[in-house]
Amino acid sequence: MNVVKNDLFDYGLKIYQNKDAFKFSLDSILLAEFVEKKKDIKTIVDFCTGNGAVPLILSTKFNCKIMGFEIQKNPYDLAYNSVAMNELEDKIKIIHDDLANALEYILPETIDVVTVNPPYFKYDPDSNINMEKEKAIARHEIETNLDNIFRSAKYILKNKGTLYMVHRPERLSEIINKMSEYKFAVKRLQFVYSDYNKSAIMVLIKATKNGLEGIKVNPPINVMKHKTYKNIFG
Amino acid sequence: MNVVKNDLFDYGLKIYQNKDAFKFSLDSILLAEFVEKKKDIKTIVDFCTGNGAVPLILSTKFNCKIMGFEIQKNPYDLAYNSVAMNELEDKIKIIHDDLANALEYILPETIDVVTVNPPYFKYDPDSNINMEKEKAIARHEIETNLDNIFRSAKYILKNKGTLYMVHRPERLSEIINKMSEYKFAVKRLQFVYSDYNKSAIMVLIKATKNGLEGIKVNPPINVMKHKTYKNIFG
Repeated sequence: MNVVKNDLFDYGLKIYQNKDAFKFSLDSILLAEFVEKKKDIKTIVDFCTGNGAVPLILSTKFNCKIMGFEIQKNPYDLAYNSVAMNELEDKIKIIHDDLANALEYILPETIDVVTVNPPYFKYDPDSNINMEKEKAIARHEIETNLDNIFRSAKYILKNKGTLYMVHRPERLSEIINKMSEYKFAVKRLQFVYSDYNKSAIMVLIKATKNGLEGIKVNPPINVMKHKTYKNIFG
Repeated sequence: MNVVKNDLFDYGLKIYQNKDAFKFSLDSILLAEFVEKKKDIKTIVDFCTGNGAVPLILSTKFNCKIMGFEIQKNPYDLAYNSVAMNELEDKIKIIHDDLANALEYILPETIDVVTVNPPYFKYDPDSNINMEKEKAIARHEIETNLDNIFRSAKYILKNKGTLYMVHRPERLSEIINKMSEYKFAVKRLQFVYSDYNKSAIMVLIKATKNGLEGIKVNPPINVMKHKTYKNIFG
């Protein structure tokens, strides 16, 4: 691994990254920023946590217990070491396991919030994915998929608990259909644009376990103009 | 009826409206503008056509046969007379019937495009809707509903034919779930805002009968700033 220590944007934290692999990105920041601040949030679980960007950012926003699941050894090591470097071991715990095994670490229906920045692309075993395995697993549904994510989230979330997801607009109807299957009601969407003359590049989704149907669509985010995000590109 | 003759925005047409009932509105213009221009479109059917605004606008954009269905007598009369006033009888035919009976007028799987600006609100027979019956039917799912619309659209549309709908974001997950049931693949969404600091007020939906999944989300529309729509409010 070609490990570097970077500032985690402007959150006042440091993060270890593998220069050759999947690095924390705008997606993680958007997801963590999308999580609504509420006083009664005591437990957050982040699936597909990668090098731990989402738990780290959430720790600046919430005074609660945060657990991250990462199936791959290299990003797990980075996340684990970043938590230690920032002296956040009492707030954040990183687990090196498949999110499908979440119930081996967490009692059923005890979690307030689940966040996930999952692999965006479907996996076709016959296709030739032309990239390093670590990157491929982070980007393609090789080790997990929407069903696993929604099933595990449903198991660990309290009734009316909240699931926050960042994904690509391309798969929105599949996501909404599957969320309905798993009894998640989509409550809020927000679309992210790099330019208001082009199609949206990302969608943020808030859903409630066993919630009532009824979507609000937040104001659009233009990442090139937004006060928080423009610096990333600037 | 308190009938007035108005300009149909800036499309160079006149339209009859009932001052006391449901008038053509921004929704109709957005829907008609959202329909993509393609040369091979020969037949368009507009459900819930009201006083005919959508067929009238579409006639300025497409050189094809357009049919509008309206179940209520008063708006039907307005639509019928507006078509005559604009001398568009050879292009537009208004039918006074329930869209569920579309197959009594149209051969199965012969239509290229269906458009619909349906009643937005669910109907609870126990609730006391405090408005005139004509308006109530235009706004609430009293005489039709999403199932009827998708079923009829599916019957009359060609394979890979396109359905365009304008609706409220609140009901988007229900719409996407039901479209999937009826084998419509959502292909394109566009959200309409009155202000980029507030939630979206409308959503435009393009879906393809028996199409492949994969959504594109168009640039957002801010009706207060958009060159076409700002005049309506200005």
